[in-house]
Amino acid sequence: MLQSFIKDIPNFPKEGIIFKDISPLWADANALKTAADALAAPYLSQEIDFVVGIESRGFILGAMMAERLNAGFIPIRKAGKLPSAVFRQTYSLEYGADVMEIHKDAFPKNAKILLHDDVLASGGTAKAALELLKQGNANVVGTAFLLELLFLDGRSVLDNNVHSVIQYA
Amino acid sequence: MLQSFIKDIPNFPKEGIIFKDISPLWADANALKTAADALAAPYLSQEIDFVVGIESRGFILGAMMAERLNAGFIPIRKAGKLPSAVFRQTYSLEYGADVMEIHKDAFPKNAKILLHDDVLASGGTAKAALELLKQGNANVVGTAFLLELLFLDGRSVLDNNVHSVIQYA
Repeated sequence: MLQSFIKDIPNFPKEGIIFKDISPLWADANALKTAADALAAPYLSQEIDFVVGIESRGFILGAMMAERLNAGFIPIRKAGKLPSAVFRQTYSLEYGADVMEIHKDAFPKNAKILLHDDVLASGGTAKAALELLKQGNANVVGTAFLLELLFLDGRSVLDNNVHSVIQYA
Repeated sequence: MLQSFIKDIPNFPKEGIIFKDISPLWADANALKTAADALAAPYLSQEIDFVVGIESRGFILGAMMAERLNAGFIPIRKAGKLPSAVFRQTYSLEYGADVMEIHKDAFPKNAKILLHDDVLASGGTAKAALELLKQGNANVVGTAFLLELLFLDGRSVLDNNVHSVIQYA
């Protein structure tokens, strides 16, 4: 069971937060494959052009999902990392604000895109990623997360269907 | 040919540097798979326990290599990102210094590890990663890079065999 590979780390990154550490799942060859299978499964017949993963934890399973979907992989990166012209989106974090970027020429208009990140919490990061993709007129068919923290109700702030593999009530 | 997917970006991240942008390769489903196949090929019979990828571009093909090798995936991360006890390694960059970390309990002693990053330039980052892995008494069987900039002679500073898929003379 995939959930058994997720480790609770109390008081990280700050007092009172219980961090869900995915790294034991990544480190298990079978759990890693099973997670990528489960993330990609609902989209196998949807002719996805690109899986977009959010830096940096969204790169790991995002690339494996892209392979399963016969899609390319596109990174959303932190500010200043991408060398060509970018779309930019500012967003609030629990502890401040940040900027994410994607190459303007990464995908053509109306490309069918599946957005991936490891964890859906309050949904702020994914919402910003959707707005970033809208700048390029992407056709976002869904958002897929390994973990969803249901008590933070992140799916209510996302325009698109949310698929998650492991849920915490 | 994989090399045709690599884009030269002049003067990034600063004047006089030609940045090798891998993102068009990631975005092409066939090139992505072919690159992961080529990276993993020399190690298929070596019973690798873990592929270790360096944050963050080393996560993308690193995870796909892990799948091909029936191995787990372990990230080396920037300082402060990992929630449990870590080994730390300071290293010099072209433009300053940085710290990388890996979870102390990520792998047992003598685990067979393949180190991956996207680009081998002067070798400083990979050398630091090898020293980090030595702190945990890993058995590093090799280092595998998508691109190698031969003119910077990074392989001379690495203790281990270097495998690279695309070379620039």
